[in-house]
Amino acid sequence: MSKTLIFGHKNPDTDTITSALAYAYLKTQLGEEAEAVSLGEPNEETAYALDYFGVKKPRVINAIAGETDQVILVDHNEKQQSVSDIDEVKVIEVIDHHRIANFETTDPLYYRAEPVGCTATILNKIFKEKNIEITKTIAGLMLSAIISDSLLFKSPTCTDEDISAAKELATIAEVDADTYGLAMLKAGAELSGKTIEELLTLDAKAFEMGSSTVEIAQVNTVDPTELLVLQEELKVAIAEKIERRQLDLFVFVITDILTNNSTIIALGDRIDSIKQAFNVTFENGLTELAGVVSRKKQIVPQLTEALS
Amino acid sequence: MSKTLIFGHKNPDTDTITSALAYAYLKTQLGEEAEAVSLGEPNEETAYALDYFGVKKPRVINAIAGETDQVILVDHNEKQQSVSDIDEVKVIEVIDHHRIANFETTDPLYYRAEPVGCTATILNKIFKEKNIEITKTIAGLMLSAIISDSLLFKSPTCTDEDISAAKELATIAEVDADTYGLAMLKAGAELSGKTIEELLTLDAKAFEMGSSTVEIAQVNTVDPTELLVLQEELKVAIAEKIERRQLDLFVFVITDILTNNSTIIALGDRIDSIKQAFNVTFENGLTELAGVVSRKKQIVPQLTEALS
Repeated sequence: MSKTLIFGHKNPDTDTITSALAYAYLKTQLGEEAEAVSLGEPNEETAYALDYFGVKKPRVINAIAGETDQVILVDHNEKQQSVSDIDEVKVIEVIDHHRIANFETTDPLYYRAEPVGCTATILNKIFKEKNIEITKTIAGLMLSAIISDSLLFKSPTCTDEDISAAKELATIAEVDADTYGLAMLKAGAELSGKTIEELLTLDAKAFEMGSSTVEIAQVNTVDPTELLVLQEELKVAIAEKIERRQLDLFVFVITDILTNNSTIIALGDRIDSIKQAFNVTFENGLTELAGVVSRKKQIVPQLTEALS
Repeated sequence: MSKTLIFGHKNPDTDTITSALAYAYLKTQLGEEAEAVSLGEPNEETAYALDYFGVKKPRVINAIAGETDQVILVDHNEKQQSVSDIDEVKVIEVIDHHRIANFETTDPLYYRAEPVGCTATILNKIFKEKNIEITKTIAGLMLSAIISDSLLFKSPTCTDEDISAAKELATIAEVDADTYGLAMLKAGAELSGKTIEELLTLDAKAFEMGSSTVEIAQVNTVDPTELLVLQEELKVAIAEKIERRQLDLFVFVITDILTNNSTIIALGDRIDSIKQAFNVTFENGLTELAGVVSRKKQIVPQLTEALS
């Protein structure tokens, strides 16, 4: 049996990268041969977390075939969010907290999804079930994932289980969750110096909704105006992506992590679905979604419904 | 929130019915409102188990809409194996041990699949994780499921985890697994008096494989010749099913639970896939598959591969 590679989704975020690292650590402790890899470079928030806890970033891969014949997916399951040649290998496990779609296997597998805010919260349970101690470093990484996915416990995706896992992990990691968390989120919300292309791909995910192909990119910021001055350039780049990739809709979500509101810029033939889903009107391709911070819980289901 | 209905697949077998009962019991102990139902009458093996442990058979339903807006699936996930109007309700949990296919949600959910021989083996873990005691009756039902799915631990789907779960459950249920198990399997293998239609639907499952629609029915017997004398009538009925339901392939698997070999009768345009998958020739629409007892592990993946 070849080594199992463990990875999260494309345009990796903190949960995707740290969950691959934490689960590879768990597998190694269980005597299995596993390596965490990633489908892209860590973003600045993740880089901050890795640096803080002294962990090397995982190796970046673009394709899997030839490397191994079996993989474990963390923090995603939809094929279009995974490695491009995922069909060439066998998925033996999935640990995830998203909807299930565009995912299919020929054989039974271990699939563990829970409707919690973060993959790390599920991993925290699995560590206990397998009786493997979580080290200070691994706890720090897992705590970072929960803080990231829950926007420091403020996202509607955040459950009591996420909060209690974070408390346990903060104790093991010997950090104050609020102080460390705000510093980490601010590192990730530092967008100055990013190119338009970087802003649109930093945390972008593709979805099949009904018969439409939709891409939703999201950035967190402490100063939305910094991005809104770039709106014309952003729209040109979005229109080009729609054209090149035959998208029906592209949604760029600018989330203010201090006010917990989002401004969205959207283009594409199916822009009607946003108006319908959120009962909003667009001005200049822009609209406000008050209280919306979670793509997974506050955007994807509503748009899927409108497009189905 | 309305009551959650819990059910397994169409043409229910012992694992599907007892897992729904056991999980509904667990949910009730956790203070949730849940009812086990089934998508058909229990077969004779299941009826034996229910009777032995003094449990009433679950209510049979044909459609779910209007009854509740949320359901839990056990022992299956593929849409065509589930209740006909499954799209009308929200699937909030799945506990299963099969491949994942033709399954999609709009929201995150609790999905627990493990590559073990039986759903009850996974439930046995969940009872422990939730700290709920398994009663003598529930243990008897869960043990019956493991014996059924593993053909008394002889199927290649049977894992060490199934065996150790069965040992624990037999102790709680206060039965000898081998003695009780053989009696239960024999009750289910009693096919005399069954009509041709009953034989073909008793344990039939539909699959989408590549672009083909395939149905695979299986019966266990201690005397295959009893069925082989009916082969002409079986073929006529199979041909009619293929015609009526536009199937590309129908496979009828007659498994001898004493020798652990299967005879198959297959008809349909894609019969070539069986020849290719198992490297066999057909004589009179019949062929032998030595050592094959498990549809899930020894037939479905091989046929899926051949048809993809």
